[in-house]
Amino acid sequence: MTTLGEIAVVADARLQGCDPATVITGVAPLPSAESGQLSFLTHPRYRPFLATTRAAAVILAPVDAVDCPAPALVAANPQVAYAQAAGLFEPVVEVRCGIHPTAWVSPAAQVAADAWIGPQSTVEAGAFIESGVIIGPNCVIGEQARLGAGTRLVAQVTICHRAQIGQRVLVHPGAVIGSDGFGLALDHDGRWVKIPQLGSVRIGDDVEIGANTSIDRGALEDTVIEDGVKLDNQIQVAHNVRIGAHSALAGCVGIAGSARIGRHCMLGGGVGISGHLDIADRVHITGMSLVAHSITQPGAYSSGLTVEPNRVWNKISARLRRLDELFRRLTALEKIVHRNTAP
Amino acid sequence: MTTLGEIAVVADARLQGCDPATVITGVAPLPSAESGQLSFLTHPRYRPFLATTRAAAVILAPVDAVDCPAPALVAANPQVAYAQAAGLFEPVVEVRCGIHPTAWVSPAAQVAADAWIGPQSTVEAGAFIESGVIIGPNCVIGEQARLGAGTRLVAQVTICHRAQIGQRVLVHPGAVIGSDGFGLALDHDGRWVKIPQLGSVRIGDDVEIGANTSIDRGALEDTVIEDGVKLDNQIQVAHNVRIGAHSALAGCVGIAGSARIGRHCMLGGGVGISGHLDIADRVHITGMSLVAHSITQPGAYSSGLTVEPNRVWNKISARLRRLDELFRRLTALEKIVHRNTAP
Amino acid sequence: MTTLGEIAVVADARLQGCDPATVITGVAPLPSAESGQLSFLTHPRYRPFLATTRAAAVILAPVDAVDCPAPALVAANPQVAYAQAAGLFEPVVEVRCGIHPTAWVSPAAQVAADAWIGPQSTVEAGAFIESGVIIGPNCVIGEQARLGAGTRLVAQVTICHRAQIGQRVLVHPGAVIGSDGFGLALDHDGRWVKIPQLGSVRIGDDVEIGANTSIDRGALEDTVIEDGVKLDNQIQVAHNVRIGAHSALAGCVGIAGSARIGRHCMLGGGVGISGHLDIADRVHITGMSLVAHSITQPGAYSSGLTVEPNRVWNKISARLRRLDELFRRLTALEKIVHRNTAP
Repeated sequence: MTTLGEIAVVADARLQGCDPATVITGVAPLPSAESGQLSFLTHPRYRPFLATTRAAAVILAPVDAVDCPAPALVAANPQVAYAQAAGLFEPVVEVRCGIHPTAWVSPAAQVAADAWIGPQSTVEAGAFIESGVIIGPNCVIGEQARLGAGTRLVAQVTICHRAQIGQRVLVHPGAVIGSDGFGLALDHDGRWVKIPQLGSVRIGDDVEIGANTSIDRGALEDTVIEDGVKLDNQIQVAHNVRIGAHSALAGCVGIAGSARIGRHCMLGGGVGISGHLDIADRVHITGMSLVAHSITQPGAYSSGLTVEPNRVWNKISARLRRLDELFRRLTALEKIVHRNTAP
Repeated sequence: MTTLGEIAVVADARLQGCDPATVITGVAPLPSAESGQLSFLTHPRYRPFLATTRAAAVILAPVDAVDCPAPALVAANPQVAYAQAAGLFEPVVEVRCGIHPTAWVSPAAQVAADAWIGPQSTVEAGAFIESGVIIGPNCVIGEQARLGAGTRLVAQVTICHRAQIGQRVLVHPGAVIGSDGFGLALDHDGRWVKIPQLGSVRIGDDVEIGANTSIDRGALEDTVIEDGVKLDNQIQVAHNVRIGAHSALAGCVGIAGSARIGRHCMLGGGVGISGHLDIADRVHITGMSLVAHSITQPGAYSSGLTVEPNRVWNKISARLRRLDELFRRLTALEKIVHRNTAP
Repeated sequence: MTTLGEIAVVADARLQGCDPATVITGVAPLPSAESGQLSFLTHPRYRPFLATTRAAAVILAPVDAVDCPAPALVAANPQVAYAQAAGLFEPVVEVRCGIHPTAWVSPAAQVAADAWIGPQSTVEAGAFIESGVIIGPNCVIGEQARLGAGTRLVAQVTICHRAQIGQRVLVHPGAVIGSDGFGLALDHDGRWVKIPQLGSVRIGDDVEIGANTSIDRGALEDTVIEDGVKLDNQIQVAHNVRIGAHSALAGCVGIAGSARIGRHCMLGGGVGISGHLDIADRVHITGMSLVAHSITQPGAYSSGLTVEPNRVWNKISARLRRLDELFRRLTALEKIVHRNTAP
């Protein structure tokens, strides 16, 4: 049970037109919030609902607080304030310490006394599990891997041998960290010879890694994910990639080997990044774009094409294939016209 | 052992030129079927094989039954008839009840007496496993998750806390249902603050979910997959997405947050759907297309471009980047010509 | 501890300007190699570092050996030579035999005496595990699946029932082999009827399969991955696909049902292949291209478009949609001009 007053403190917000002693039972969107619930306004589209909402209070920006008909928690950054307030209503992850009887932990692993190893998990020799780590059910921690304090693996996570995971990292189910990079040499018979992947992976602090995302170990040096990076689901990070601090990558992004992404970058869903290139800090790439050369300037970049009805698209696609012809025809015509109109 | 007569009943088909007592031992494609095997004709390309097939009977449409030289099972919808007939030849999944000795089931979970919890699986507190559920090996069922009657998790499936799975749902290995959505607020230092994902996931009845597919829980309200939806492998469904009943999504589709897909839609492989948009019922999107705005009319839509040899494509790609110049040059030329030809 | 002389033998290389007795402690890139380390030159960009490297020896091609200022191991194919040399520095996977006490192996499975079944793994009835197989932690081997001699599943791998895996196959975490294909028939109510997936999967020898990659079983006949194929992470291989020997597929490739890829092909990251088509031997497809028709000739093919700054791309994208208008306007103008300039 939380009061508006307590929420205001957590969310660094100012109360307007509401009683700090009001008890709040949960969080809900503006149109459906009931009395006793907290809501928020982060998109102008929802502003009309301020007049009719039954919410006990609405988190909103100072500009929206002027003449606001609803009780409000006024915050400089309503999104962050909402994130902090909503944290009060998360189901509590029960603090458990120790090793579940069905887990298998190598006697040669080191596990902090206040860490938790969940059911059916495996912790191999030489692994180092720091204080407060929560390893959910059915995870695998490879030999000599290290998990920093406060890190949580939700379930079914694989951390391969020697991977180094920072503090307060959150890893969702199905993620794989430290699998072999795709390193191959072609022999004279056209057969592939595996190049041993001798590097590792280093994940910084406060990183979040989505479901079924995979991050390969380096070929020789390490793959590096810097502090505060957020990776969504189904992402592929190849060997020797470096992702700069506080960058956020949406689902299904694929990054080829040795690419370097800057800090504070944002990659939309399904973006592909070719190998051996550099992307500057603060670059935004829109969804399903392909980056095949380095980007040296911050800004927004795209190469995605959005759908048309099939009969329209088929015509565009066919015309596109005749684009070279079009340029030639235009150039020829220009010559005729300019010759005819010459003085 | 099954006879043609029994198959005709199951497949709702009419026998033509064959003995209902014929014993059928298996199913095979038209060109390779042996005597004693059942085959089918669902694509006109294979019609010539009717004259030479050794199959004991061929499932086909009434139009193909006219003058058919082979023994036939005539069905209004041969694909559905084949699906039903082939079901008779599936390896039987052994009916097992109870809890495998290596599974771990919380004493605070409820498991129906005729459900099966396979080896190495974990069932957390408050989970509710209904009648006839089959949980294969190495699965994880989170706290308070619910699995409806007759649902089957093949192996290595993760159902996160509070996810609600309907009846007769089939989930393939590596799938993750109910992982946190990718909800982030940017603070004034350019760091990401996690927005708690307080919603859940609701999966309807008769849904199929492919290998390594991930479906995130909602931020506040639920992510919803309606009845009869079929999801292929490697699909990403973000938080608060709604997929309408009986839609089918091919492999590698990615759907961003809060997108709403209609009923009876079909999305080709690798399609990307941007967030916060609506797609009407009965919309078909061809493979690798990007949908970045709402679609209000049923029909087929595309934006994919198919390959050309590199030297051709490189020229097209270069010309494309000069398309604006082309329009300007043409417009300039039109002005000259029209001025010159003016009366 | 290895000497340059021993490395030269393994890598089939010739020593130039160095002592075969030199002890080598590890491998490192040219710019950062320390004395006692081995390095390599496989890209001309790094040639300037030959003058300053501290490496004990550099693996390089005969053309780079001329006037080479650094001690060298000269090899006809430096990439392959490096791969072989680096293998000497891989952490040794401890040879373990037997069944870990936390694994569950059906009494009806057959496991070679020198195979290893790791912690928390499940081996179902009828599975056949050949000599020297290493099954890492938390893997699932389905009924009647077969793993050939020397195959290794790293961790969290799922091999479904009846899948046939060849010899010396390496499978990375999260991979799923033999899940049901996406086979559906549409009934008269617009509902999907599942088509039983009665085929299986056959994986050849010396295949590598990446993290979180999925390979479906065939609908009726088998899905086939031939010898020496290398699959990166996050790949989707649909039912009845055949991938020819020694082809290599980069991350996030998706292949639709019944497509046939030739031998010695290379597919870039994120490539999409439509179903029911054939790709010849020795075809290269660049990243994020879509193949929607058969390719009969070897060579390189593309359809990817690379990013531009948003304002440039938005103009291109808008112009593209008026491409048909452009062709019509040009044709109209040509008629006027040619009429006016007619003799």
